[in-house]
Amino acid sequence: MKRVFILFALALTTLAAAAQGRIVTDTLYSKNLQAQQYCNVYLPEGYSVDRHYPVVYLLHGLSDDYQSWQKLGRMKDVADELIASGELLPVIIVMPNAGDQDIHNYQNGYFNMPGWPFEDWFFHEFLPAMEGKYNCGGSKGQRAIMGLSMGGGGSVVYCQRHPGLFSSCYAMSPWLDNKNHEVDTEHGPGSKLVNTQKSVCEHSALDFLARADEATVEQLKTVKWFIDCGDDDYLLHQTLQLYPLMRQRGIKAELRVRNGIHNWEYWHAAVRTALPFASRNFYE
Amino acid sequence: MKRVFILFALALTTLAAAAQGRIVTDTLYSKNLQAQQYCNVYLPEGYSVDRHYPVVYLLHGLSDDYQSWQKLGRMKDVADELIASGELLPVIIVMPNAGDQDIHNYQNGYFNMPGWPFEDWFFHEFLPAMEGKYNCGGSKGQRAIMGLSMGGGGSVVYCQRHPGLFSSCYAMSPWLDNKNHEVDTEHGPGSKLVNTQKSVCEHSALDFLARADEATVEQLKTVKWFIDCGDDDYLLHQTLQLYPLMRQRGIKAELRVRNGIHNWEYWHAAVRTALPFASRNFYE
Amino acid sequence: MKRVFILFALALTTLAAAAQGRIVTDTLYSKNLQAQQYCNVYLPEGYSVDRHYPVVYLLHGLSDDYQSWQKLGRMKDVADELIASGELLPVIIVMPNAGDQDIHNYQNGYFNMPGWPFEDWFFHEFLPAMEGKYNCGGSKGQRAIMGLSMGGGGSVVYCQRHPGLFSSCYAMSPWLDNKNHEVDTEHGPGSKLVNTQKSVCEHSALDFLARADEATVEQLKTVKWFIDCGDDDYLLHQTLQLYPLMRQRGIKAELRVRNGIHNWEYWHAAVRTALPFASRNFYE
Amino acid sequence: MKRVFILFALALTTLAAAAQGRIVTDTLYSKNLQAQQYCNVYLPEGYSVDRHYPVVYLLHGLSDDYQSWQKLGRMKDVADELIASGELLPVIIVMPNAGDQDIHNYQNGYFNMPGWPFEDWFFHEFLPAMEGKYNCGGSKGQRAIMGLSMGGGGSVVYCQRHPGLFSSCYAMSPWLDNKNHEVDTEHGPGSKLVNTQKSVCEHSALDFLARADEATVEQLKTVKWFIDCGDDDYLLHQTLQLYPLMRQRGIKAELRVRNGIHNWEYWHAAVRTALPFASRNFYE
Repeated sequence: MKRVFILFALALTTLAAAAQGRIVTDTLYSKNLQAQQYCNVYLPEGYSVDRHYPVVYLLHGLSDDYQSWQKLGRMKDVADELIASGELLPVIIVMPNAGDQDIHNYQNGYFNMPGWPFEDWFFHEFLPAMEGKYNCGGSKGQRAIMGLSMGGGGSVVYCQRHPGLFSSCYAMSPWLDNKNHEVDTEHGPGSKLVNTQKSVCEHSALDFLARADEATVEQLKTVKWFIDCGDDDYLLHQTLQLYPLMRQRGIKAELRVRNGIHNWEYWHAAVRTALPFASRNFYE
Repeated sequence: MKRVFILFALALTTLAAAAQGRIVTDTLYSKNLQAQQYCNVYLPEGYSVDRHYPVVYLLHGLSDDYQSWQKLGRMKDVADELIASGELLPVIIVMPNAGDQDIHNYQNGYFNMPGWPFEDWFFHEFLPAMEGKYNCGGSKGQRAIMGLSMGGGGSVVYCQRHPGLFSSCYAMSPWLDNKNHEVDTEHGPGSKLVNTQKSVCEHSALDFLARADEATVEQLKTVKWFIDCGDDDYLLHQTLQLYPLMRQRGIKAELRVRNGIHNWEYWHAAVRTALPFASRNFYE
Repeated sequence: MKRVFILFALALTTLAAAAQGRIVTDTLYSKNLQAQQYCNVYLPEGYSVDRHYPVVYLLHGLSDDYQSWQKLGRMKDVADELIASGELLPVIIVMPNAGDQDIHNYQNGYFNMPGWPFEDWFFHEFLPAMEGKYNCGGSKGQRAIMGLSMGGGGSVVYCQRHPGLFSSCYAMSPWLDNKNHEVDTEHGPGSKLVNTQKSVCEHSALDFLARADEATVEQLKTVKWFIDCGDDDYLLHQTLQLYPLMRQRGIKAELRVRNGIHNWEYWHAAVRTALPFASRNFYE
Repeated sequence: MKRVFILFALALTTLAAAAQGRIVTDTLYSKNLQAQQYCNVYLPEGYSVDRHYPVVYLLHGLSDDYQSWQKLGRMKDVADELIASGELLPVIIVMPNAGDQDIHNYQNGYFNMPGWPFEDWFFHEFLPAMEGKYNCGGSKGQRAIMGLSMGGGGSVVYCQRHPGLFSSCYAMSPWLDNKNHEVDTEHGPGSKLVNTQKSVCEHSALDFLARADEATVEQLKTVKWFIDCGDDDYLLHQTLQLYPLMRQRGIKAELRVRNGIHNWEYWHAAVRTALPFASRNFYE
């Protein structure tokens, strides 16, 4: 059988040569959330726990979960290619889950809400556990955050409230506020969706900026910001409010409006820009 | 429940407004192939059988089937977006299956081989049936072909052998020849893979061009050609042979070598270029 | 001397093969403007007055003149390449001069002002003369307009006021209003710059849209709109006002915000997108 | 005059905020070349001789001189924009002159030839002088080279012959060999063009690679290579020979073939890719 499938052997060799990270699914029980929290973690080719890596937190949207960035956004192929071309440093990419065990249900979002202290969990339990286990991050200069829609808003708000923790923030089609949308009154004040919408409203990135004092603005200037939203995205008006507010306050940000809607075509292209942006802004 | 989920309603409305084609799965029994042949067909938004459309044949690769362009290449989202932006005319996109019923097995390819007269079937049964049923194509000016890997080679060879039938040909990472690869001797002369490899060798696009007489070359000039292959693709050397041969014979072609390997990242980007290329080259 | 410079001969042959339009400078005396009006006209390779062409009006900015799109924006090389690749139909591109004879002075702009009835001249004298002489345009479907800065605003306002005349409008870094800028009081009410600023204020594209009645809005929907402005352009806030206004009124437009400032790097890239956009939207 | 030209003041402020490097013209007398050698040097915004910078050598083509990259390729605007966006480190860009004083005459090229020991001058006089004066380069990790046409070939050959000096090489539309072109016999063996052509032939990058022993190949692997040539460039065949040769010898390189010919549209786009490539491959 010595001469069998040489074409395929060649193919395999070549592909293997082209840098292959891998995705592992990890899990962490949280007493505070009362949930077994899953996450996906991208490990670059040649990953070794003995070496230190920068880290990117990559957040999903409202109707997605920790698997979506890979399943629907195929982030691994993008990251592999960018690392191979040198546009992305070898990096750990952590994809958390912003919901409880019932991952097919509506999500609970990135903020603290009744019975769901997610933001506390993220910063006090999840982030330290991940960075310890995978030997990554550990400081503002070695940590970036990005996400789409609800996760885009989450990225912005996390950097607004914790500017000392992230070197950069890349928001894709971000959901930044919920003021102009009426709230689900059917399911009552305890329903997940109502709570999620309410918490987005309470954590409005627009309000935060409007109210920020000078000291806060100075802190915000220490983060590199990038906002990227499709010209036919139904959330574009929020991006078009956020960016001028940031300029008015003297906070430099990149803005891109490309052709597109609120879908994975847009985010798949965006993550190709976002990862090199994070990479360029890491520092020791 | 009158004020429930307004955010989602808005989202739905917007998405619906952004042009939504659909994919139907069709099937055709072929006596000559002794197979029930499946295919996917993209129908643009507002499709009506009363209106005539140009047609694109979009061919899959060796280890894929008629579903791959949608499942792995998400061609519908790309086509929807390009039609919405006006870069692609409303078009029928036909994705045939180059294998027999056992679609999880190795494919049989696009050429005639013992017991598998695929090329005959394609031109004499399949193409007329599709164009009749969906009211599309019908002439060289209203018909284009494109594909990846084995389907990229298939596209080139179909246009070499039937230049009067296609206005344009877009080959992605094409498999154009099999001469330098030894053949599977294990599975014997009757195995599918051996036959597929042998038929690619016999239908070498490079040989065809080298042997073409002047009259043939004149015919080839009536097709618009585009070849697109990654710089780290293990088949790149074949593209780098084909293109200079075409130039030597005075056959104008577009060539692109972008960053990438033999994978869906490459082809997903390629089809975004390929569909507008086909569209620009349709004529009445 | 028979074997001299073969390398260069080869180069010349190849370049010649790559489609070469040319630019002619034309001139037209206007009694109403009391000026000899210059313009540049791009004629595609193989131009013949016996054949009819679509036409693009390409407008310069405040401190430029009719030569700037070629001298600083090298539009001929872009047009040649796009025609060769099939992304642009063979087209006439007319570059008018929005100033008087003293072309090194501040310009007078695209609107009627005291002693400078430019808009009247453009539509009643210039446009018919150009389209007659070069056998181009002649109808909405065969006519497009685009421009940068003051010429981007000019393009928008011309299409707002004459929606029946243009199939598409592409505004680059447009100057759409002058309300928030104080006016030059030094040079007095008769100075050129004061008049230009005042006329931009009076012809505010934002005001026009805010005041447009339903019938007007229906007319505006017959134009294909594209707005393209850099994220660090000092005029971006005007684009960010115009686009939501258009969406509110149901007027579909493309929006792009790319990386960049108010400079020729931006416009040189923009014209590469703008010409195919115009081309796709021509109709018989 | 306190309220005059506020619009323009705003514009100026914004533009100034967008990072402005500058170009200085420098001159160096060479006894060996018997020439006053001019060069252009790009200094990034905020340049200070007290700070150390990486250096890029940017080489012109046969019919150009040290001014062409700015005059025709507007490299300053590209570099300014890339530094502002963080894609390019603050860098010194040195543009030498590969001709004698009579810069309107045909150039003499990058190699040693009778009476014109340019390569010796470049490495022994020019490079040390520039890096000393501008406090840049000084080691392989802090030095890159790139160029177009004759300068693309020059970049490749310099890196082949001095692989220990450059971290990366980016060749645009490179002139890599002159074997298939007959030589100017009219002007005689002493003419500049004859000598330039002959020296390109003698310094064939293709021959160098074909003859390289294993130790040399190992050295070549320490350089990051990028080759970029238009699909309609009359020199493309040389690129299509070089790249497979490099792959055969196990020397990794990036290859891009984009739409285009041998012109400034191509090189202006290329330098936008080349500078970040050099930047990513600098190291301490």
